Amino acid sequence: MTEMEWSKREKVIARRAFDAAYHRECMAITENVRKMAAGVDDPADLWRLSGYLTKKRKEVDEKYDYRYSVHLIVFARLICEGWLKPEDLAGLSEEKLEKIREIAEFGI
Amino acid sequence: MTEMEWSKREKVIARRAFDAAYHRECMAITENVRKMAAGVDDPADLWRLSGYLTKKRKEVDEKYDYRYSVHLIVFARLICEGWLKPEDLAGLSEEKLEKIREIAEFGI
Repeated sequence: MTEMEWSKREKVIARRAFDAAYHRECMAITENVRKMAAGVDDPADLWRLSGYLTKKRKEVDEKYDYRYSVHLIVFARLICEGWLKPEDLAGLSEEKLEKIREIAEFGI
Repeated sequence: MTEMEWSKREKVIARRAFDAAYHRECMAITENVRKMAAGVDDPADLWRLSGYLTKKRKEVDEKYDYRYSVHLIVFARLICEGWLKPEDLAGLSEEKLEKIREIAEFGI
């Protein structure tokens, strides 16, 4: 993918959207942890919770890559997964929004 | 330490005491996890919880070593830490109980 230039304003929008998605996903994981913790009856349940959290931490670490070169792909993925809404990205250039839509729809 | 023989009855008592301590400690960890999860306000709190659980899992895995050769040391440690009560071990030979007391008191 051709690398794109990011204006100062776009960088602010990107940072805010990225942080919002990260916060939403972490809070959703927290909600699952609360439910799982409430239901722990024996040690095996506790270690299942531990395994879930370790897996999620790895997934989140890999997913939330803040390099500009992968921003469009990361944003497309976050939209597909529901952590970002298209309106969170309002203010990015039409070219970038179009590319994000394309990736989200077709994985281009 | 000289290795001791464990009668069939003593093995049953040891297994029950070991499992009870393991269950108690895991449930105490669960209680901490519930409290920490309830207080998660941001991703950093969530990853602190994850770190706590990973550390506890490692500690518990190392501590609950079920080899007969280390039973007395493990039981002494569990008593010191409050996961076992001396009465959980009632029925073991006086020699073993004395040794457990010694280790618990002086780390012998």
